Amino acid sequence: MVMRFAGSLNLLLSVVAIGMFVETWPVSAQAQSDPLPSWNEGEVKQAIIRFIERITSSGGKDYLPPAERIAVFDNDGTLWSEQPMYFQGFFALDRVKALAPKHPEWKEKQPFRAVLENDMKAVAASGEKGVAEIVMSTHAGVTTEEFERIVKDWLATAKHPRFGRPFTDLVYQPMLELLAYLRENGFKTYIASGGGIEFLRPWVERVYGIPPEQAVGSSIKVKYELRETGPVLVRLPEIDFIDDGAGKPVGIHKFIGRRPAFAFGNSDGDLQMMQWTAAGPGLRFMGLVHHTDAEREWAYDRESPVGRLDKALAEARSKNWPVVDMKRDWQVIYPFEKK
Amino acid sequence: MVMRFAGSLNLLLSVVAIGMFVETWPVSAQAQSDPLPSWNEGEVKQAIIRFIERITSSGGKDYLPPAERIAVFDNDGTLWSEQPMYFQGFFALDRVKALAPKHPEWKEKQPFRAVLENDMKAVAASGEKGVAEIVMSTHAGVTTEEFERIVKDWLATAKHPRFGRPFTDLVYQPMLELLAYLRENGFKTYIASGGGIEFLRPWVERVYGIPPEQAVGSSIKVKYELRETGPVLVRLPEIDFIDDGAGKPVGIHKFIGRRPAFAFGNSDGDLQMMQWTAAGPGLRFMGLVHHTDAEREWAYDRESPVGRLDKALAEARSKNWPVVDMKRDWQVIYPFEKK
Repeated sequence: MVMRFAGSLNLLLSVVAIGMFVETWPVSAQAQSDPLPSWNEGEVKQAIIRFIERITSSGGKDYLPPAERIAVFDNDGTLWSEQPMYFQGFFALDRVKALAPKHPEWKEKQPFRAVLENDMKAVAASGEKGVAEIVMSTHAGVTTEEFERIVKDWLATAKHPRFGRPFTDLVYQPMLELLAYLRENGFKTYIASGGGIEFLRPWVERVYGIPPEQAVGSSIKVKYELRETGPVLVRLPEIDFIDDGAGKPVGIHKFIGRRPAFAFGNSDGDLQMMQWTAAGPGLRFMGLVHHTDAEREWAYDRESPVGRLDKALAEARSKNWPVVDMKRDWQVIYPFEKK
Repeated sequence: MVMRFAGSLNLLLSVVAIGMFVETWPVSAQAQSDPLPSWNEGEVKQAIIRFIERITSSGGKDYLPPAERIAVFDNDGTLWSEQPMYFQGFFALDRVKALAPKHPEWKEKQPFRAVLENDMKAVAASGEKGVAEIVMSTHAGVTTEEFERIVKDWLATAKHPRFGRPFTDLVYQPMLELLAYLRENGFKTYIASGGGIEFLRPWVERVYGIPPEQAVGSSIKVKYELRETGPVLVRLPEIDFIDDGAGKPVGIHKFIGRRPAFAFGNSDGDLQMMQWTAAGPGLRFMGLVHHTDAEREWAYDRESPVGRLDKALAEARSKNWPVVDMKRDWQVIYPFEKK
């Protein structure tokens, strides 16, 4: 998480102001029976539908019992956007500003001073140590209930700098349809995110239809305290678990205890999750989102510090895992384009 | 976990051979509509049924939306027996014996030598450090898939010393009915056990109808490795999380991310789980199993090193949390008594 924040803050420096213009993409009339209406006809859509048909065909050789229908999705860059930096990064910077009145010393202390002065170059210069300080000072020291309220309040008011919309508007319409399609076919849909689990849980049910108990992510430690007003769980400034890279199969195993049959990611941080999924017996589905649409969303892969996609793309190509070409495969990116 | 094992091994020393005689308890004819036929009429049964009626009564002031119907159960002593020691302790001792041929040095090395010679007094004398060595040498060093196979194979052959039956026969029939009753009323039923999560997951679906992803427990760390034969998760000899006492609300928050509306335990290790449950808004149910039946099961509470019930019993009394008197409230203890 720390390294990711460092990378994302770096990137922020290179982001030029991007206009607020959003294209209204034509949504063609689709047969009502199409489970994935925002997906253009093509290899990826066909691979998804063929997979579902095969694993639900009772008596077929690829039939998968409902109890084993576990699907895992990365979040940043797979279910919602992650540019110009992970959205949790915006949250952390906003929290520094919100907390500043209680921390007069921050006016003179880096990296907080840099955040308060919107000097992103100096924030980035504070390095991993600085970013860790920002994360811990903005994510710890409160109870779990207080933090949930803080996340909800932030999401209700914060706006994405490019689109001028709430961050939760920037979820991918085709992926919402895919999540629903999987659930209609008996899947339990899970998130396996490198982002913070408690940053996800307050809103994933409302936005993705994924209940909080089906969100896996990175975490800091919490401690039980019996106060005079009752028991609380206090968030501590100490990493508990990093759910990224080789940590993703570990997190999936820890929280779910079953190997997924379906996994979708978009970056090298998802590669081990996909390898772990692929290695199970029977038919499996491994998919990647490739960000190829600078106009409607963003275009980036091998060189991007946020959501770098290099090794996982090579492995997907060599193993014939479906790769979404966002520009080609997605008729609509965000739900608001449909209006 | 380590302290629990130490306590349980101590207790093993004091256990005298107990006959194999099992009473066949008369199961009275019950109305088919009785959701809890193995529960005698009484305060606890009435409290459970009244709670379910109130939280499912739409429009009522205690109505609980289905998404928030989370029930958590301790396992050892709440869903199955835990005497003369935690059943995972029997597993560990059996594993030492099974692994002994690969460890000729164990013949001379404590606490392994003591286990191999069935010298439980010497095992206990090895203390926490010795017990930790037994746990780590029998639970780590294999892949997660190998460990799952080992647990399943052990459960298929191992017998409880008193009853001469598989350990999974020693689950409580009234609790199986309670789990089913909760699920029929929209609850997701979870285990929150001080025992090992990977010792639970291979069998809880078959025995309790609880899927592995709804088991929370103590854990050791695992590590992702990409071997020539494919990726594996290797179990490391290092504690990851102890899901006991003040760790239970932490584990529940970590894995589920919602506060339960219903919690059942049987020992002081469940107290914080019950406090955390009780502190939520709206109607909550907190219940305890009090082991009062030395004839059909065991009778123990304040003085027992396994499943000590002291502070939690006092708090239950003072807060009017229902307490099962096993002898009085349960018409049947184990499913096999019904035959």
